[in-house]
Amino acid sequence: MRHLLSIADLTRDEVERILDSARSLATVDERLPTLRGRLVLNLFFESSTRTSSSFELAAKRLSADVMSLKAAGSSVDKGESLEDTILTLSQYDPAAIVVRHAQAGAPQLVARWSDAAVVNAGDGKHQHPTQALLDLFTMREALGPLEGLHVSIVGDVLHSRVARSLLQALALVGARTTLVGPPTLLPRGVEALGCETATEIEAIGDADVVYVLRMQRERMESAYVPSLREYAARWGITPERVRPGQLVMHPGPMNRGVELDGRVADGPQSLVLAQVRAGLFVRMAVLRELLAARPALEVVA
Amino acid sequence: MRHLLSIADLTRDEVERILDSARSLATVDERLPTLRGRLVLNLFFESSTRTSSSFELAAKRLSADVMSLKAAGSSVDKGESLEDTILTLSQYDPAAIVVRHAQAGAPQLVARWSDAAVVNAGDGKHQHPTQALLDLFTMREALGPLEGLHVSIVGDVLHSRVARSLLQALALVGARTTLVGPPTLLPRGVEALGCETATEIEAIGDADVVYVLRMQRERMESAYVPSLREYAARWGITPERVRPGQLVMHPGPMNRGVELDGRVADGPQSLVLAQVRAGLFVRMAVLRELLAARPALEVVA
Amino acid sequence: MRHLLSIADLTRDEVERILDSARSLATVDERLPTLRGRLVLNLFFESSTRTSSSFELAAKRLSADVMSLKAAGSSVDKGESLEDTILTLSQYDPAAIVVRHAQAGAPQLVARWSDAAVVNAGDGKHQHPTQALLDLFTMREALGPLEGLHVSIVGDVLHSRVARSLLQALALVGARTTLVGPPTLLPRGVEALGCETATEIEAIGDADVVYVLRMQRERMESAYVPSLREYAARWGITPERVRPGQLVMHPGPMNRGVELDGRVADGPQSLVLAQVRAGLFVRMAVLRELLAARPALEVVA
Repeated sequence: MRHLLSIADLTRDEVERILDSARSLATVDERLPTLRGRLVLNLFFESSTRTSSSFELAAKRLSADVMSLKAAGSSVDKGESLEDTILTLSQYDPAAIVVRHAQAGAPQLVARWSDAAVVNAGDGKHQHPTQALLDLFTMREALGPLEGLHVSIVGDVLHSRVARSLLQALALVGARTTLVGPPTLLPRGVEALGCETATEIEAIGDADVVYVLRMQRERMESAYVPSLREYAARWGITPERVRPGQLVMHPGPMNRGVELDGRVADGPQSLVLAQVRAGLFVRMAVLRELLAARPALEVVA
Repeated sequence: MRHLLSIADLTRDEVERILDSARSLATVDERLPTLRGRLVLNLFFESSTRTSSSFELAAKRLSADVMSLKAAGSSVDKGESLEDTILTLSQYDPAAIVVRHAQAGAPQLVARWSDAAVVNAGDGKHQHPTQALLDLFTMREALGPLEGLHVSIVGDVLHSRVARSLLQALALVGARTTLVGPPTLLPRGVEALGCETATEIEAIGDADVVYVLRMQRERMESAYVPSLREYAARWGITPERVRPGQLVMHPGPMNRGVELDGRVADGPQSLVLAQVRAGLFVRMAVLRELLAARPALEVVA
Repeated sequence: MRHLLSIADLTRDEVERILDSARSLATVDERLPTLRGRLVLNLFFESSTRTSSSFELAAKRLSADVMSLKAAGSSVDKGESLEDTILTLSQYDPAAIVVRHAQAGAPQLVARWSDAAVVNAGDGKHQHPTQALLDLFTMREALGPLEGLHVSIVGDVLHSRVARSLLQALALVGARTTLVGPPTLLPRGVEALGCETATEIEAIGDADVVYVLRMQRERMESAYVPSLREYAARWGITPERVRPGQLVMHPGPMNRGVELDGRVADGPQSLVLAQVRAGLFVRMAVLRELLAARPALEVVA
């Protein structure tokens, strides 16, 4: 592994190795010296709390130097191109660049322009691979081996980079996926990826895990769904809709009372907070996987 | 002490212990290893330079890992509730959460939602306990024992969390307080807390310390006072109004020429900069008091 | 050297010492303990990526504690004066304050108000001395001794703090400078500083280095030049205009296709990225020069 741009680039062995590595990191209570003296750049061109803070902390726990840049207050304001920003920052010899960008494919470009290992922290509606990996980690911690597991992904699959990455990751490890949502929000032809689809909420009944997607408020305005209230009534995951023994996940931030009822989010079947915690360990594992094997670049002036 | 939410939660012994601890920290010239490997989260939902940088530096001087999050550019933008933000960030096992929030009572809620030690860095018009502690520290450094000291707090007491905390802190250590200001800006019934009130500026004459509150510009617009110029003329602390030997304090940022004349602020009777310096030592002492006695949480994944 | 406010304050020996120091730092691959336990404050009152990140990283590589404050979200929002902000932050005993400010002369004021070593990171249209030093470093790395070198500075010299600093720096080390640009953008009487001027782009033909200035979009609106397109046509540095063997520099961020053709920027004659890399080493050298010789201030509470 040289970069982590998309789940599609990973083998099943690589996924298992990252999850195992994250497992071992979850028991470590102190800073590791793994990345001492190496620079991790966090470039978030879209706002984020959970992903950016998770990567920042993961890098610090591995003793890296961390520099976090947001789009606002940067040269991007002055109209500099992404390419020039990356070329410029690459002169500081970052070991890794973690990038979130509104445009699908931006991390691939960053990887082309820089010698650093690039981690996609979310690009447009395309991919969010560390989210998928932390989701797998959370499922494996709760339920054991992933092979044969059945996961329902509920909601706005069409616009979700989280769903796209998770779908591929679940297929890779031999889990079964059903996409459940209004027909307007399910991508056409997605069954070709080996998953099933359903357009009635009752279809979640079979699943071991109900994975609830965030309902973007802006979808409402663009007429994909009639209203938040109607969406909640038809697709919201309420205590009544969850079967005993089913586990519930959500990538956050949640719209409580829309796609996920607060009683479920806070109840014993919810893995929502375990996902956040997993994020830290999985991102440490990804950075270690990408960087520990690779020696620091020599500084050539 | 588990949290520092309000001066009302402290005993006189605890206050003295923090001030003594700050005194000893003021002589230390290097980084202390006290909080090595532990995470301090700074959550500022209101803008701040002095308090946020003071806490950040205090935590770094104790070798903590520090993560500072501002409301802007965070999930709060996406409409996430404070509770979900805290539950999420708590998954990183912060040892302490320092929180400033526009809503009174927010830090209490944070303490309920998290296992971290919570420090209130200012909540609405309610409390700002580390400000009161650094003010006591500054007075004690300048004047010796606080018992029997007489402090006049001048200005907009009604809307001031600084005044509310300081009033309680002064009462706790046996100092005497007089609140001085226009009747519209003095809280009704405050005498029940054991302080005196006066509505003429001449009433500051007796005090050992004149503590000048910031005049919020927005009060002008809401007709609490006629105009900044009239306020300055009637209530501004000028060289003529200060008695020789009196000391003058202000929590900053100052409106020079409004509540405090620049000649006083920059003169030999001013403790304004000593207060800022005290803030660093007092916040180090508070973090040490809350965290050093408490072992790090185990990481349970 | 107590501060670095302007190239005009430096001797030729000091410049050479900084460049030599930067050269030795360019071969160091690890964190140096030089500034351990000392605080570097980065105060950027104007937006910046390249300069602020370069200083931040330079300070971290020297093991300093770094605190970066932007104008937004700070007390400056509350109308605090620059003087009060500096007096306040100075209570934390910063070893150095790096300051960028829209107003020419602001760093001089900061130096008056604080005991810290002050580094001007750009003030209005006045000076940007570390940019000039990194430019000299880059030229020396590429071409050897600077004495007798011929540099053409092309474009909006009138409004450029980069040009002003570079011009002085080149004169100091015995290089020859020609300013080339539209007459409206060349400062009157600048020949008194010992440089030549030319108002035809062909005048760059003699130079060893063509130093291209950023064309500020706002100049267009104020009628200094007719349009970006016309500016590019008359003054843009294209492959056709560059002589074989000439080197091309730009302080960034570039307006590709306006003042500098992308084929030149990305071509073998371009030193643009070498400049960015030089910035890190030169800023480390400046901080070391200012601070390493000077013992830490004692903490007096």
